[in-house]
Amino acid sequence: MDTPAALIDTLKMQRNIQRMQLRAESLGVHLRPHVKTHKCADVVAAQIAAGARGITVSTLKEAEYFFERGIHDILYAVAMAPHKLPQALALRRQGCALTLITDSLTGAQAIVDFGRQHGETFAVMIEIDCDGHRCGVKPQSPELLVIAQLLGASLAGVLTHAGESYGLDTPGALQAIAEQERARCVEAAERIRAAGLSCEQVSVGSTPTALSALSLHGVTELRAGVYAFFDLVMHNIGVCRADELALSVLTTVIGHQAEKGWVITDAGWMAMSRDRGTQSQKRDFGYGQVCDEYGEPIDGLLLSSANQEHGVAQFEHSHVDVVTHFPLGTRLRILPNHACATGAQFGSYIAVLHDADVQV
Amino acid sequence: MDTPAALIDTLKMQRNIQRMQLRAESLGVHLRPHVKTHKCADVVAAQIAAGARGITVSTLKEAEYFFERGIHDILYAVAMAPHKLPQALALRRQGCALTLITDSLTGAQAIVDFGRQHGETFAVMIEIDCDGHRCGVKPQSPELLVIAQLLGASLAGVLTHAGESYGLDTPGALQAIAEQERARCVEAAERIRAAGLSCEQVSVGSTPTALSALSLHGVTELRAGVYAFFDLVMHNIGVCRADELALSVLTTVIGHQAEKGWVITDAGWMAMSRDRGTQSQKRDFGYGQVCDEYGEPIDGLLLSSANQEHGVAQFEHSHVDVVTHFPLGTRLRILPNHACATGAQFGSYIAVLHDADVQV
Repeated sequence: MDTPAALIDTLKMQRNIQRMQLRAESLGVHLRPHVKTHKCADVVAAQIAAGARGITVSTLKEAEYFFERGIHDILYAVAMAPHKLPQALALRRQGCALTLITDSLTGAQAIVDFGRQHGETFAVMIEIDCDGHRCGVKPQSPELLVIAQLLGASLAGVLTHAGESYGLDTPGALQAIAEQERARCVEAAERIRAAGLSCEQVSVGSTPTALSALSLHGVTELRAGVYAFFDLVMHNIGVCRADELALSVLTTVIGHQAEKGWVITDAGWMAMSRDRGTQSQKRDFGYGQVCDEYGEPIDGLLLSSANQEHGVAQFEHSHVDVVTHFPLGTRLRILPNHACATGAQFGSYIAVLHDADVQV
Repeated sequence: MDTPAALIDTLKMQRNIQRMQLRAESLGVHLRPHVKTHKCADVVAAQIAAGARGITVSTLKEAEYFFERGIHDILYAVAMAPHKLPQALALRRQGCALTLITDSLTGAQAIVDFGRQHGETFAVMIEIDCDGHRCGVKPQSPELLVIAQLLGASLAGVLTHAGESYGLDTPGALQAIAEQERARCVEAAERIRAAGLSCEQVSVGSTPTALSALSLHGVTELRAGVYAFFDLVMHNIGVCRADELALSVLTTVIGHQAEKGWVITDAGWMAMSRDRGTQSQKRDFGYGQVCDEYGEPIDGLLLSSANQEHGVAQFEHSHVDVVTHFPLGTRLRILPNHACATGAQFGSYIAVLHDADVQV
């Protein structure tokens, strides 16, 4: 097997998928996985088999890719740009149950106008800002009702994403942001309903809030993505154990700087991505936690720096004779900071069926 | 044109290619461009047309790609991992003049042994450590001569890369590191020759040192990559002007947070990459400098944060009515921190032939 390569430990992935599915069911909501994390039809198949209902995508290209592979119920969860409407129309004309989102009057107007011109009633959710993190209209804003009225028959529901949850790392804080995400999205739905309009779907989610919510009362569906693989950022947030990470990068030792204790690997940022998501967290893993070739973490050995096709692994605190312990050609695995970013660096994954303990 | 898209301003690129070619010629050396920056056959064709001799690659996959497109003289400038030797052999058997590099006795032994088994004399350069930055053997080390003797007829020369130059930003410091890169690589070559061995090639380079060297006496070839596009990191180092950047990302405004002065774009880190190379430089450009759709920088407007498919642009110091100035659907261009990282996020480029002044 050539390196660098992206490995998926399928046992761990299946466990992660089951865990989130059971969680959604116990909270009484549907699960609509965000597939931007893996962009992989086989992983989606495992999620659907476990009980997921439809998928969430971050680009229309992803929507087209998964629709061609048999997925019909697709939510494109990025505010619709008017120039992309012909692409969305083409998908719907082919039979895709594509839902769009918007968070502005201008955006809603563009969708409605384009729909009228082409005799199409798009399904549209209004994006709600539940935490000031990124996009969305505030649940209390007058604009919410104006957009809802404008959308009319196109209005499919409301949707939010508590991006602020990525900055937290205690169960109490995570439960609070999950409740805030739920409550503000439900509040928006209730305001729309109180105005005499229908608001069927109430969609919330992020992996940290999905795994922390105590109740999803009033919510109809949960979205989450990175849980299928998990990563070091999620580990720092506290929603998974290190041994639950399903994605790793297989690499080969291509050199050393013995005096400095450096192990040079062929996994640089082209493999790991430039994501330094753990830099501002309680434990900084550099560009990743280095493991042996079976995925068992090597205590204190981090990928401390990365160039395009070179990575430098070194021990944080101890000085080890790296030439003896990690000779040229040694295979290692690296757990990534951010599975979405690392996964996106590869055109394909290699499914492996071994844990540190169980080699098949 | 859909967004995000990677645009190459071909006039700027051609000027950049000419500039480096003229520089190599005035210094009396061949230019062997590093194609990891662009990975694009059309760009290589422009470099060859301008006078480049052969190319440098960072993976054997790149070597295969460019060999299939008619490039024969290829230097694979990452220390050879033994398990990749069959792939290198296959390329040479097909007629590719592939040169490998090594910086260890173990690595050299593996190449020589594999070559003997298969009746192939690989061409190999020894990587020299000129600045303690990453890989290579020290020019004064006893190991250098042992590796050279072991390689014997395979020894094609010595090669170095002053990675430390990326941390500098004054002409004096850049001239000094360029001279250090030259002097240490030539020293290594002379030690090998003094031991009675042939050392034909003396290869140095990085874009900052290539553009700063006062003399390349004793050097035979110059390698550089990012100069074809340039980027904000190179601008901060001081080797290009902002209006020389040939690569930009075209994006569309998909929303606003008016109170905060945020312009939401459809270029996030999937488009820009997670590279924050200017973070530690004298001017931090966030995830990129925002320009109008013709590529003219908008003073103080930076891509301040990036999610997977969302970017947030905001003015650094002033508060502007962003909804009025950048309505939904507005096209913008973003200049990247690091052209190699941004370029690698796209499967293709769109060649454009307009400057801020000259629209064609």
